[in-house]
Amino acid sequence: MSHNLLKGKKGIIFGALDEKSIAWKTALHCVAEGAEIVLTNAPIAIRMGEINELAKQCNAPIIPADVTNMDDLENLFIKTKEHFGGGVDFMLHSIGMSVNVRKGNDYTNLNYDFMHKSVDISAMSLHRVLQTAMKHDAINEWGSVVALTFIAAHLAFPNYNEMADIKAMLESITRSFGYQYGNKKHVRINTVSQSPTITTAGQGIAGFDGFVSFSEKMSPLGNATAEQCAEFTVALFSDYTRMVTMQNLFHDGGFSSTGVSEAVVAQMGK
Amino acid sequence: MSHNLLKGKKGIIFGALDEKSIAWKTALHCVAEGAEIVLTNAPIAIRMGEINELAKQCNAPIIPADVTNMDDLENLFIKTKEHFGGGVDFMLHSIGMSVNVRKGNDYTNLNYDFMHKSVDISAMSLHRVLQTAMKHDAINEWGSVVALTFIAAHLAFPNYNEMADIKAMLESITRSFGYQYGNKKHVRINTVSQSPTITTAGQGIAGFDGFVSFSEKMSPLGNATAEQCAEFTVALFSDYTRMVTMQNLFHDGGFSSTGVSEAVVAQMGK
Amino acid sequence: MSHNLLKGKKGIIFGALDEKSIAWKTALHCVAEGAEIVLTNAPIAIRMGEINELAKQCNAPIIPADVTNMDDLENLFIKTKEHFGGGVDFMLHSIGMSVNVRKGNDYTNLNYDFMHKSVDISAMSLHRVLQTAMKHDAINEWGSVVALTFIAAHLAFPNYNEMADIKAMLESITRSFGYQYGNKKHVRINTVSQSPTITTAGQGIAGFDGFVSFSEKMSPLGNATAEQCAEFTVALFSDYTRMVTMQNLFHDGGFSSTGVSEAVVAQMGK
Amino acid sequence: MSHNLLKGKKGIIFGALDEKSIAWKTALHCVAEGAEIVLTNAPIAIRMGEINELAKQCNAPIIPADVTNMDDLENLFIKTKEHFGGGVDFMLHSIGMSVNVRKGNDYTNLNYDFMHKSVDISAMSLHRVLQTAMKHDAINEWGSVVALTFIAAHLAFPNYNEMADIKAMLESITRSFGYQYGNKKHVRINTVSQSPTITTAGQGIAGFDGFVSFSEKMSPLGNATAEQCAEFTVALFSDYTRMVTMQNLFHDGGFSSTGVSEAVVAQMGK
Repeated sequence: MSHNLLKGKKGIIFGALDEKSIAWKTALHCVAEGAEIVLTNAPIAIRMGEINELAKQCNAPIIPADVTNMDDLENLFIKTKEHFGGGVDFMLHSIGMSVNVRKGNDYTNLNYDFMHKSVDISAMSLHRVLQTAMKHDAINEWGSVVALTFIAAHLAFPNYNEMADIKAMLESITRSFGYQYGNKKHVRINTVSQSPTITTAGQGIAGFDGFVSFSEKMSPLGNATAEQCAEFTVALFSDYTRMVTMQNLFHDGGFSSTGVSEAVVAQMGK
Repeated sequence: MSHNLLKGKKGIIFGALDEKSIAWKTALHCVAEGAEIVLTNAPIAIRMGEINELAKQCNAPIIPADVTNMDDLENLFIKTKEHFGGGVDFMLHSIGMSVNVRKGNDYTNLNYDFMHKSVDISAMSLHRVLQTAMKHDAINEWGSVVALTFIAAHLAFPNYNEMADIKAMLESITRSFGYQYGNKKHVRINTVSQSPTITTAGQGIAGFDGFVSFSEKMSPLGNATAEQCAEFTVALFSDYTRMVTMQNLFHDGGFSSTGVSEAVVAQMGK
Repeated sequence: MSHNLLKGKKGIIFGALDEKSIAWKTALHCVAEGAEIVLTNAPIAIRMGEINELAKQCNAPIIPADVTNMDDLENLFIKTKEHFGGGVDFMLHSIGMSVNVRKGNDYTNLNYDFMHKSVDISAMSLHRVLQTAMKHDAINEWGSVVALTFIAAHLAFPNYNEMADIKAMLESITRSFGYQYGNKKHVRINTVSQSPTITTAGQGIAGFDGFVSFSEKMSPLGNATAEQCAEFTVALFSDYTRMVTMQNLFHDGGFSSTGVSEAVVAQMGK
Repeated sequence: MSHNLLKGKKGIIFGALDEKSIAWKTALHCVAEGAEIVLTNAPIAIRMGEINELAKQCNAPIIPADVTNMDDLENLFIKTKEHFGGGVDFMLHSIGMSVNVRKGNDYTNLNYDFMHKSVDISAMSLHRVLQTAMKHDAINEWGSVVALTFIAAHLAFPNYNEMADIKAMLESITRSFGYQYGNKKHVRINTVSQSPTITTAGQGIAGFDGFVSFSEKMSPLGNATAEQCAEFTVALFSDYTRMVTMQNLFHDGGFSSTGVSEAVVAQMGK
């Protein structure tokens, strides 16, 4: 699907690791829709993943940046502005990592140094990116920023662990900074709350498969795929959605508005 | 449990049918906490139920009123003010009936005359009650009104049928009239969104048992009972909650904030 | 702006009165994006408005229908299917009218016969439309339905009167029927909660201008226009948003997520 | 007001600084309602404030604890269990401090080391407290935990700065840990979202007075006082609210459910 929705627009895509990544697919869709992009990720993720392959397909430079490092972010925006000869029109923040999940710590047995690290990578990073962008005036008037989140920010999902609380902060940053950037340059900032998606990141979560199946049974349209999330994100980057800001948008086949489905009730009776 | 929380307060309890009713239990609790009450219900419900028994236990008069009939409501408030020698401090609206559910009509096959009737009994009735009370200045300063609702007002529950949409209207009336009555006389109006409860009313809903069991498995504290709902309502009538208004308060053991429980995920794997 | 987003799609637009109408602008945008449409409105609105002019511009038939009349709706879907040789891919429900507002009745002095009429026209109409469409299998797989609403469904706005409660019901119907139609044919149903918009309908509301100005001062991006609402609705009809369903989507320049703006605080100090 | 609501219950009150503190007033109310309490605060806050005076009035020991220090928290629960000869029935978390606000950094110019510190003190502290309590089995069956929050967790309030995002995390921790502790020991955990309150903490926020006045004009019942917040918290500690958990409860005179008030619209016209 392509309708040249992003023709003439420039953007930055954070967080493409491999072809399962939502960011990866979004990068491809943006380019297919006529945009030019810059790719960025943490140096370690660049080494571990396959972003060079994506860069070729997108004809895009890779500018490494650790999103917890302000010098890296400064460099990213300076280099991006040089590359495009100006600011960007859109950004995707698809960054999340729970150190406690990786280390196998339960939610009632967290290590708080790890939690600080997780908060920094997964939530404060959005603030760091936006603050640096504003400082460098790197987002054009009526630009659009999207960050990916999950419904656990609103409801308890035991296996999602500390990331629930961190995504809640991420969604709040979207509102708080959306107010500031909206007032200043008509930049809109939203989160997309996506169905559970089997990416390399998602795989780290215990009980994830059981939850994906529950979610599929609950959602009238089924779980949204990474591909569909990329398409939706393109719409949010386009000029069709210019007055939507500071929102959390559920892209989940109806999961978030379903109290119980007949399929789940049937399963409960077994 | 009694702490004289409602000592000196007067109130009206709408909707006590039989001893399973939340309204029935609330009436008993209010009296146990020191309140004096008036009982009311539709003439047909009075004939079918056992409210005379409750009236004896509560030493309370019964003033029949069809809540869709303005003359009946006028009479109710006039008689109540005579009885108490003044206005009331609290009211419980525990009224709901879906004609389409009774007639066995699915949600995609509604009869709209029936739906109008259901809307009138279950949602507009709250507005009628409040408008009549305001006209007769029948609620005292800092009075408290509670209406019972269900989470289906926020999320799709297929078996709850048209009542979902009607409860959504009820909750909105709570906010809209809460604004008006708050400004005028500091009267607060809230809804309590109660766990699925096996009452005579609840029994009419197909698949209700399956849902009660799902809800029990999802809620960290289990489903709230009718007895506990009565206790919570007493707290909302008391002076401890004077600044809470225009809210929908979930009294559900955590169901509304749980995305999925381990017990449900385990069941899904079977 | 046009990107052929709706190429090959067919739809029905309810509620275009005159060129200020959101429905009017949406009709034009849909056609500009490659769609074919059918226009419909109540007979009286057709006589009072200028829909014939729109029909010419859109090369669209007008099929009159009173949305509270099931025969009219049957006829609408039968004729539409004949016209297109099949079902539709999208529908816009832009229908709302408060009889009590027209009659000048305050929210604490409602006439309940009028309120039933308002409920029927403004909320139950969506259910009637969907139930009839489902009966005639008139919406294609992965079709998209949008209904317009206002934030008063969530928060008290004194001048919005009974429409607040009715819009709350409308949003609930969106969820309840969205579940059903999603399960059955992957049809998605959403509401768009639009900034206050100066249309012929909006003009009937007392204090509306004051509120428009408040909303403009609160919203980081300012109030969304009818034109922008039409563009957003096009995105919701397009294939970019196929997994978004049962949602209420705020299209309001950030109003709904702003607690207070500096502009408003400054004004409060005067 | 006292009804012996907390007779026989034991609890811990975090965060009483001086007599303006909500925690201070809550401590007094709990004792007046028949509870025994332990007071705790950070060593520096104990030195700067007047908690010794409160301790005398409450006949309560003070056990100092820096809530970002796990050894201090271990000590707090060990000592508290010794003091009471068992676990506690309630806890109030009234702890919040924004280093960036203190340092005068705007929201678009945050220092991230400061932000980590603010997150730790104001949000992660609740997790630290609960995790330590669970480890020491220090909360009795059906215990109740309340943390204070503010509506900025849901809506942008420019002057509330980073605390908005941090309170969003706090509210999420309430849900996430509420699930865990509910399942394990029927302990309930809720936040109270209080009207802006002129405490020593609140005074640090620029533009706070203007906002208090806006909030007063918006809220049908006016702003809730610290005293009323203490009363509401007592109700949440009592057995009347045992099935309410994982909720954010607005105690704000209706502010959170009011879109605009007539008083504010009138002011906008000036």
